[in-house]
Amino acid sequence: MSDYIAPSSDYRFLAGHVLAPEYLQMPGAADADAATLSEIVATLGTFVAERLVPLSVLADEEGCTVADGSVRTPRGYPEVYKELAAAGWASLHVAPEHGGQGLPLAAGLACDEVLSSGSMSFALYASLRLGVYKVIDALGSDVLKSDYLSRIGSGEWNGTMCLTEPQCGTDLSLMRTTASDTGDGTYRISGTKIFITGGDHDLTENIAHLVLARVQGGASGLAGLGLFIVPKFRKNASGAWTVPNGVRCPRVEHKLGIHASATAELLFEDAHGWIVGTPGTGLAGMFIMMKLARLGTSFQAIGVAEIASQKALAYARERVQGRDLVGGRKGSVPIIEHPNIRRELVRMRTLTSSARMLAFFASITQETTASPDPALAVQSERLLSMLMPLSKVVASEYGVEVATAAMQTLGGHGYIRESGVEVLLRDVQILPIYEGTNDVQSLDIVLRRLEEGCPELLAWMRGQVAFLPQGRRAAQVSRTLDLIEGAAVALAGQLKASPFSALEMAREFLWLVGHGVMGVLWLRTLQTIDQGDKLPINAQSKRAEADFYFAFVHPEVDVRAARLNAASEVQDALLAHELDFI
Amino acid sequence: MSDYIAPSSDYRFLAGHVLAPEYLQMPGAADADAATLSEIVATLGTFVAERLVPLSVLADEEGCTVADGSVRTPRGYPEVYKELAAAGWASLHVAPEHGGQGLPLAAGLACDEVLSSGSMSFALYASLRLGVYKVIDALGSDVLKSDYLSRIGSGEWNGTMCLTEPQCGTDLSLMRTTASDTGDGTYRISGTKIFITGGDHDLTENIAHLVLARVQGGASGLAGLGLFIVPKFRKNASGAWTVPNGVRCPRVEHKLGIHASATAELLFEDAHGWIVGTPGTGLAGMFIMMKLARLGTSFQAIGVAEIASQKALAYARERVQGRDLVGGRKGSVPIIEHPNIRRELVRMRTLTSSARMLAFFASITQETTASPDPALAVQSERLLSMLMPLSKVVASEYGVEVATAAMQTLGGHGYIRESGVEVLLRDVQILPIYEGTNDVQSLDIVLRRLEEGCPELLAWMRGQVAFLPQGRRAAQVSRTLDLIEGAAVALAGQLKASPFSALEMAREFLWLVGHGVMGVLWLRTLQTIDQGDKLPINAQSKRAEADFYFAFVHPEVDVRAARLNAASEVQDALLAHELDFI
Repeated sequence: MSDYIAPSSDYRFLAGHVLAPEYLQMPGAADADAATLSEIVATLGTFVAERLVPLSVLADEEGCTVADGSVRTPRGYPEVYKELAAAGWASLHVAPEHGGQGLPLAAGLACDEVLSSGSMSFALYASLRLGVYKVIDALGSDVLKSDYLSRIGSGEWNGTMCLTEPQCGTDLSLMRTTASDTGDGTYRISGTKIFITGGDHDLTENIAHLVLARVQGGASGLAGLGLFIVPKFRKNASGAWTVPNGVRCPRVEHKLGIHASATAELLFEDAHGWIVGTPGTGLAGMFIMMKLARLGTSFQAIGVAEIASQKALAYARERVQGRDLVGGRKGSVPIIEHPNIRRELVRMRTLTSSARMLAFFASITQETTASPDPALAVQSERLLSMLMPLSKVVASEYGVEVATAAMQTLGGHGYIRESGVEVLLRDVQILPIYEGTNDVQSLDIVLRRLEEGCPELLAWMRGQVAFLPQGRRAAQVSRTLDLIEGAAVALAGQLKASPFSALEMAREFLWLVGHGVMGVLWLRTLQTIDQGDKLPINAQSKRAEADFYFAFVHPEVDVRAARLNAASEVQDALLAHELDFI
Repeated sequence: MSDYIAPSSDYRFLAGHVLAPEYLQMPGAADADAATLSEIVATLGTFVAERLVPLSVLADEEGCTVADGSVRTPRGYPEVYKELAAAGWASLHVAPEHGGQGLPLAAGLACDEVLSSGSMSFALYASLRLGVYKVIDALGSDVLKSDYLSRIGSGEWNGTMCLTEPQCGTDLSLMRTTASDTGDGTYRISGTKIFITGGDHDLTENIAHLVLARVQGGASGLAGLGLFIVPKFRKNASGAWTVPNGVRCPRVEHKLGIHASATAELLFEDAHGWIVGTPGTGLAGMFIMMKLARLGTSFQAIGVAEIASQKALAYARERVQGRDLVGGRKGSVPIIEHPNIRRELVRMRTLTSSARMLAFFASITQETTASPDPALAVQSERLLSMLMPLSKVVASEYGVEVATAAMQTLGGHGYIRESGVEVLLRDVQILPIYEGTNDVQSLDIVLRRLEEGCPELLAWMRGQVAFLPQGRRAAQVSRTLDLIEGAAVALAGQLKASPFSALEMAREFLWLVGHGVMGVLWLRTLQTIDQGDKLPINAQSKRAEADFYFAFVHPEVDVRAARLNAASEVQDALLAHELDFI
C-alpha cells in the first residue's frame, strides 16, 4: 500500500451525487464534471505520494534557512515546485487566457487538500499565490494585469499577502507601513511586515508581494489603507525583471510547525509599489485574498486530517498489542481489533469527511456567487458569508482533533518524530490562528451575519430538511435548527442589551450552526445512499460515518446550546474573576 | 511581575479548607499542615521562577545529546539538579531515616506541579526516582534497602522504570528482556528497553534502573515477570560503585516535546541485576511505581497548565489589539478586555483549578490507604482505584486544552518558539500517552472497577451531596450522579452481553464520572466560600471559577451521557465501517 491515497472517490461522490445540484450550478462546472474532478485529484494524489510525501519529514527537519536576505527552502522543494508548475497544477483555477486550466475554484481547492496531505508547508507555496492573481484580475490596471497575471497564474512567479506587522495583527487600524505617492504612477513603500508566508524562497525567480499600507496624506483609519503590488525584482529599462526592489528578508520565524514554509519578516525600504485599485480600496482587495485564504485554510486542514487518519489506520493494522477482549481470540492482536481504537479510527474518518463536505460546499458556493442568475448570486453571497467562517473553524479544529487522535493511536511511537505523525499535529496548529483566528471568525458571524447571512442559511437548511425524507435523523437536525433559531434571536437581543454575553459566546453559536449544516449534509448523504444508485464510494462505510456522526458527534449541540442559554451566568463569572495570581 | 508565581494559596485553600477533613486524616498530615504546605510550595516556586523558568526554552532548543553511550543534559540542568537535591527538595516524601523530610506524598506532588511549571523535562528527572525508592522500600531485601534507599531517597542517585520494549508497550505479555539466575543471589539481565525516561543523564553519579524482565525457566505469561534493580555502576570489591554494569544508552529519541528529558533506549548486556521481591511479584512491584507515576502525570499536567495560563494572562494584559466592543472606549485596547479572550483566560484558570482539586484529592486518598483505621484504608483503596485513572485522564486532557488555549490567546505569536508557549503544548502532549494511555485508564475503570470502586465512589459522592447545602448546583450534580449510576448499570450489562459497546464507550464513562467528582469538589468549594471564613484565596474569583465550571464546563455531561445511550448504534457504525481508502 502506498503511504497516501487521495480521496478521489469522495470528491466524485460529493460533486457527482451529494452536492451535484449545487455543483452543476457553478459557472464552469462543465469543464470539471465529477469524473474529471476525481481524475484530477487521483492524478495529483499519485504525484504527491511519490514525490512529496517522502520529503515531508526531512523537509520539516531541515526547515528554511536565510542567507544574505534570501531564503533557501528544504532540499527537493524547488524541483518539485517546478515540476508541478510545469505540469499545470499551479494554474488549475487560472483563466485560459493567462495560461491556466480554467477549472472551477472547487477543483483547485480539492487539489490544495491533496498537496496539504503531502506537505502543508509545501502547499502554502503552491496555493497562496492564487489570491494575488485574483486581486490583480479584479482590481488591477491593464499594465499590472499584463505584467503579472500570466506569470503569477502559471506559477512562474509566486505571490504573498503582506498584512501583519509586529504591533498589528487582527487590528489593521494600527498599521504603520507607509506608501508615498511619487506622482509618476508609483509609490514608495516602507515598513516592516512579519509572519509573511512564503515571504522569500528559492522556488521562483520573482515574488509579487501584495502589501497593505497606509497612504501618506490620505484618509485616517481603515479608509486610508491601500493595496500595492511590490515585486521582489522590478523591471529595468529594457523590460527585464532584474532590479532589486528594496525588499529584504532578514529572518524567518522559528515555529512550532510548518518548518518548511518560510514565515518571513520583510523589510520594505523605499520599495517601488504599484497601487491595485485606488487609495482606500485596500481593504476590499484584501478581502478578495482573505476569502480565498480562508477557504484554503479549510482544505489544508482536511489534507492534514486525511493523511493523519491514513497513517493511524496503517499503524493500527500492523501494531500487535493487547488481548482480544471481544472475540476472545488467543494471543495478542492488531490494535485495530480493540473497540476504543476502532472508535478513534472511525471518528477520524467521520470528522475528516464532515469537514470536507462543509468546505467543499463552501467552495461551490463561492463559485455560484458569480452565477449569471442574479437570485442565485445574491443567495450564494449570503450563504457564503456564513459558510466561509463555518468552514474555516470547523475544518481547522477537526484538523487538530484528528491529528491529535492519530498521534494518540500510535501511543508513544506517535510522539517520536520519525513516525511522521507528530509533524502533522505541529503543522495543523497554525490553522485555527492564521487568516483570521477562529475567534475572529466567530465574532464575524455574531457581529455581522445575524441579519442577513444567518437567516438565509437557516432558511436554506429548513428547506433542505423539509425536502429530505423525514425520519429520526431529520427530526434530530430539525431540533438543532430550532436551537440555532432560538440562539440567533437571543444573540441579536444580547447584542443590543448585553454585548458582552453575545461576544463571549460567539464560538458556541458558530459551532451550533456548523452542526446544523453538517447535519443537513449528512442527511443528504444518507438520502443519496438510500436512492441506491451505483456509487463511487463504499456505501456501507459512508453510511457508517453518517450514523457515527449522528450518534456520537452531533449530540454535542446540546452542550453548545446549554452554554448559550447560560450566557448571562457565564458573563457574571467572567466579570467577577479578578484574574490575579496572588 | 515574575514570570511565574506558584499557586501556594490554592494549595493552602485546598489542604486547609476545601479538603481539610480528608487532609487531616492522612498519616503524617501534622508534619505538613496547610500553612506549611503553602510555604513549601511558595519557596520552591521562587526557586523555580529564578532558576528553572529562565532555562526552559533554551533547554528545549538544546535537548539531550548522546556520546559514547552516555547522555548530556542541557546546560544548567546538572547545577540546578544538585542545588535542588542539596536543599532537600528531592527528598520531601522520603522517610527521615533515609535522610528525607518525611512529608506526605500530597506535599511532594504539589512540588512536582511547581517543578513542572518550571520545566516538565526537568521535573521528570527529579520525581520519577520516587517510585524506585517506594518499590525498594516495600519489597526489597535489607541489603537492597541499605544500598539504595538513602542514596535514591536523597536524590544523590536517580532511578528509572524500565518496562517498554519495541514490541511491547501496554501488552506486557510480549516482553522479551530476560533475567537468568546465577545462583549467587544475582541475575544476569539482557534485552532492549525503549522510551526510558531519564534512562541516562549527567545529573547524578549513578542510576538505579528498575527493570521488568522475564525470569528464565520461570512461569509463562505475566506470572513469569520479575522486577530487578540494575545499577548503571555496580560495587567493586571495596564497596565503591564504580564498575560499569553492562547498561548502555546508544540513543535518545527525537520527540515532539520534553526535549530536555532523555527518553533513552537502553541495552542491557548481561547486566548484574538484584531481584526486588520474588520471581513472579514483578507486576505487583511495577504497580507501586505505576501508581505514583500516574499521580505524578496529573501534577505535571497541572504544572504545565498553570504556567500556560499565567503566560497567556501576561500577554493578554500587554497586547493592544482591537476595539472595545463592549464599553465603547476609543482606540485599541489590551486584548484582555475582549469577552472571548476573557472567557478563555477564565476557562484556563477553571480547568487548571478543577484538575488540581481532583488530583490533590487523589493524592490525599493515596495517603489514607495507609491509615491505621482499617475502614478508612479500605475505603481509600477503593476510591483511589477510581480517582487515580480519573485524575490522570482529566488532568492530562485539561493540560492539553489549557496549553492549546494559551497558544491561541497569543495568536501567531504563540506559534513562534520564542514565545515559550508552544513548548508547553509540545511537552504536555505526552501526558495522555505515557504511564498507561488514557484509553487504558478508561478501560481499567470499565473492566475492573464497576463492582467495587465505582459503587464506593458513587456512594461517597451521594453522601457528599446529601450533606452539602441543597440548591440549584447541588441538584445539577445530583442529576449527573443519576446519569453515572444509570450508565454504570448499563455498562455492567453490556460487559456481559455486548463487550464491544462497553469498551468503545469507556472514555465517555470515565469523563462522566470525572464530572461527578469535580462537581462535588466545586460544591464543597462554594460551601467553603459561603461559610465566609477568612480565606487564603480571592473568594470572589474562586466563586467565579465554580460558577463558570457549572455553567460552561459541567453541561458537557449531557453529551457524554447521550453517547453512552447511543452505544449500540455507535457499535453498529464502527463494525460496519470497512476502513478502506479506495
